[in-house]
Amino acid sequence: MKRQDIQCDSQGQLRHFLTIEGHKRETLTQILDTAENFVTVGNQPVKKVPLLRGKTIVNLFFESSTRTRTTFELAAKRLSADVLNVNISTSSTSKGESLLDMLHNLEAMHCDMFVVRHEQSGAAHFIAQHVVPHISIINAGDGRHAHPTQAMLDVFTIRKHKPDFTALRVAIVGDLMHSRVARSQIHALNTLGVPEIRAIGPCTLIPPYLEQMGVHVYHDVREGLKDVDVVIMLRLQRERMDGALLPSELEYFQTYGLTQEKLALAKPDAIVMHPGPINRGVEIESSVADGPQSVILEQVSNGIAVRMAVMSVVLGRKPSGEEGEA
Amino acid sequence: MKRQDIQCDSQGQLRHFLTIEGHKRETLTQILDTAENFVTVGNQPVKKVPLLRGKTIVNLFFESSTRTRTTFELAAKRLSADVLNVNISTSSTSKGESLLDMLHNLEAMHCDMFVVRHEQSGAAHFIAQHVVPHISIINAGDGRHAHPTQAMLDVFTIRKHKPDFTALRVAIVGDLMHSRVARSQIHALNTLGVPEIRAIGPCTLIPPYLEQMGVHVYHDVREGLKDVDVVIMLRLQRERMDGALLPSELEYFQTYGLTQEKLALAKPDAIVMHPGPINRGVEIESSVADGPQSVILEQVSNGIAVRMAVMSVVLGRKPSGEEGEA
Amino acid sequence: MKRQDIQCDSQGQLRHFLTIEGHKRETLTQILDTAENFVTVGNQPVKKVPLLRGKTIVNLFFESSTRTRTTFELAAKRLSADVLNVNISTSSTSKGESLLDMLHNLEAMHCDMFVVRHEQSGAAHFIAQHVVPHISIINAGDGRHAHPTQAMLDVFTIRKHKPDFTALRVAIVGDLMHSRVARSQIHALNTLGVPEIRAIGPCTLIPPYLEQMGVHVYHDVREGLKDVDVVIMLRLQRERMDGALLPSELEYFQTYGLTQEKLALAKPDAIVMHPGPINRGVEIESSVADGPQSVILEQVSNGIAVRMAVMSVVLGRKPSGEEGEA
Repeated sequence: MKRQDIQCDSQGQLRHFLTIEGHKRETLTQILDTAENFVTVGNQPVKKVPLLRGKTIVNLFFESSTRTRTTFELAAKRLSADVLNVNISTSSTSKGESLLDMLHNLEAMHCDMFVVRHEQSGAAHFIAQHVVPHISIINAGDGRHAHPTQAMLDVFTIRKHKPDFTALRVAIVGDLMHSRVARSQIHALNTLGVPEIRAIGPCTLIPPYLEQMGVHVYHDVREGLKDVDVVIMLRLQRERMDGALLPSELEYFQTYGLTQEKLALAKPDAIVMHPGPINRGVEIESSVADGPQSVILEQVSNGIAVRMAVMSVVLGRKPSGEEGEA
Repeated sequence: MKRQDIQCDSQGQLRHFLTIEGHKRETLTQILDTAENFVTVGNQPVKKVPLLRGKTIVNLFFESSTRTRTTFELAAKRLSADVLNVNISTSSTSKGESLLDMLHNLEAMHCDMFVVRHEQSGAAHFIAQHVVPHISIINAGDGRHAHPTQAMLDVFTIRKHKPDFTALRVAIVGDLMHSRVARSQIHALNTLGVPEIRAIGPCTLIPPYLEQMGVHVYHDVREGLKDVDVVIMLRLQRERMDGALLPSELEYFQTYGLTQEKLALAKPDAIVMHPGPINRGVEIESSVADGPQSVILEQVSNGIAVRMAVMSVVLGRKPSGEEGEA
Repeated sequence: MKRQDIQCDSQGQLRHFLTIEGHKRETLTQILDTAENFVTVGNQPVKKVPLLRGKTIVNLFFESSTRTRTTFELAAKRLSADVLNVNISTSSTSKGESLLDMLHNLEAMHCDMFVVRHEQSGAAHFIAQHVVPHISIINAGDGRHAHPTQAMLDVFTIRKHKPDFTALRVAIVGDLMHSRVARSQIHALNTLGVPEIRAIGPCTLIPPYLEQMGVHVYHDVREGLKDVDVVIMLRLQRERMDGALLPSELEYFQTYGLTQEKLALAKPDAIVMHPGPINRGVEIESSVADGPQSVILEQVSNGIAVRMAVMSVVLGRKPSGEEGEA
């Protein structure tokens, strides 16, 4: 339970959100329930609640991502926090400052939370292990490892349409090998009690450890989609593939791309999801992406609410004895 | 009246501000009158009004412009809105995401307004045609087409000094061919009832359609400046000229550059305007730019008030029946 | 007393903060006392005071520095000001706009303060000489000249540990030649009455004018550290050295780097300071940087409070007769 230790404080309250692994079902459910309250904030004329007023949240992005940075910045501002964007490629690390020295400097400025994006797996954990007790870390994507807030918004979106996780059959299609999103989704679905998770993709893009996670592997997409309730398409991470793992994008689309014809094999009320940004005509046909079963844009809306929930749960914990200023 | 349709909602209220064309005189006057109220905000100790608190305004800049971005960011912050700066060259469009998918994502995050700057004419219209009903677009400059908030701050500045538009003679001098500012100014002056607009410049920099817009064309600057009330100098858009349309900057200055001697041909109380940034010694002499007839820096101050006015008019419209969340 | 004139308004109130030179001891003490009140703000649950609400502060950075920009941005936000980040390398100066025209534009937007960082000595003074009376300038580092807020946070940190400046012996070690920080520190320590300031470094890195400032120069680090109360290590500004002023980093460390063994020569309760970012193993040993005598991270915390103090003192002055809008 080492990870549990890192993510919670001595009172067992959620302190960091680094990965889905190690969290109890109740913790995930608490976040989902909290997010329900924030969904309505996006529809109000004044899209702001004063929960984190006077808190300082730093977007610490070692890997550029306008999209992800924007969602966290919006979530923080709607909670009334102050936000600092720090893009590390242009920062003082180029002057030879070590990562830890930079972190300790930000700590000393009394920041409350670092939202960390890094191209290396484990970066957010490393940072969480080294920050002083009053700081919380949220992992906004680390290498191939995890993207836990993405997984939370995905299960939140699923719950909106299919409230009983224990009755679901979920298929994840595509490049599971390189996907931190898929890893986190599988952990979240498992923790929430989904009885059947399927991974669909070519041998070269399915990692061997999936079967140990209780996932059913399919190489035939038609067989894998049969009677599922949820289809999660993954983005083809072309920029993360180092070799020729795929013959061509066209061939990939013909084999694994989600078309209306293939989708018809799933349950009639199945929903279609994608973490975005989508490659139209590569992993998904436009008529499916924009069709009535697609909940892709709902995922984006829910992403703000879920990130607000994670931020407010983590920063809303009561201070415990050991946790004064370092 | 297609453009009218795009810029107004079904109740006839101003929804987008993409171009001056198609707006009635009353609409422009409403914006000018609203801006009067915001001029004083810049002089108060607390330069902030709570009108747009809890609104999310996105600066969507496909073309870098610190100057324009700064004025919109300031205007939004003084209205208490939350501002997101999204520089598109570094965003996920580089991952192959289409423009429309990116827009739909920002929509799903419940943003209220996009301030759009783009190097291609028509970009803001294209975006306005495709966003969901609750979002407003402000054109912050698209290619050679339009820069309507610049034109509004110009007519606002003129009205401060010369309250009766119907008694004015206005000269616009320089590179009208490449100037989105000039196009928008001419439409605004026409709509507000200015009886005589003159365009002054070399043949190569005067577009043929001006005469159809009722503009009097002069190639002789001395003749054109005679007895005018307002002289608007344009910036020489060197970066937009593809060929050798001009012999040299020095020769341009000698022929068309505004000097004290040439300015003396205008009315004694004529005002001198320039959208900035100015090229001293190219289109305008320093003693004129900094002289008593220059209102160039007033234009900058008024720019904040006018942008606040456009933002608050557009976002202050009452929701109509058709316009729920998409 | 020309500098005094520039930094104060006609009532003798602090208007700009460009350099330590020319300020009376009372002025520096006022800033230090004000900063005491802000230290606690960083420890409150709501790290915000409404002192500068509705003020517009522009970070005008001609030289990139994430670290310094971050501290000023945080300080301004905790005072509830609106902050604009303007990175000049990408701004309209690249369109041929002169620096003064750009400044006058920002003035016209009713900004209240420019925090200026520039690679050329004197840049902040130049700007202060040319802005209209309602604008204040804070120098955030100009070339080799000055970095006065850094010096103020240093003397603030010293005072926390050694309240009586008139009883202190302070050593500054390293590259004093290229250090704007050291210049400002020496002026601040002199003004506050420190009787003995020592400069320690190789001949090539000690500027000749130090002795005229009353500083005792040592080339032997062991001799120089003997019985001092405060050891200030400077960063080795490798990027500022144009020639081969040093044999090698290793040799520098062996001669001038602060080790536990050398530190033992100072008083037993001596404190160790460094403006950061530190080069571990070059100018300071890790066991010293992280050891019980190090106050390096306290300096960072105090930096926020001291910058809040400078900002609030400067913007809190009462308007005088001559100072209306320009």
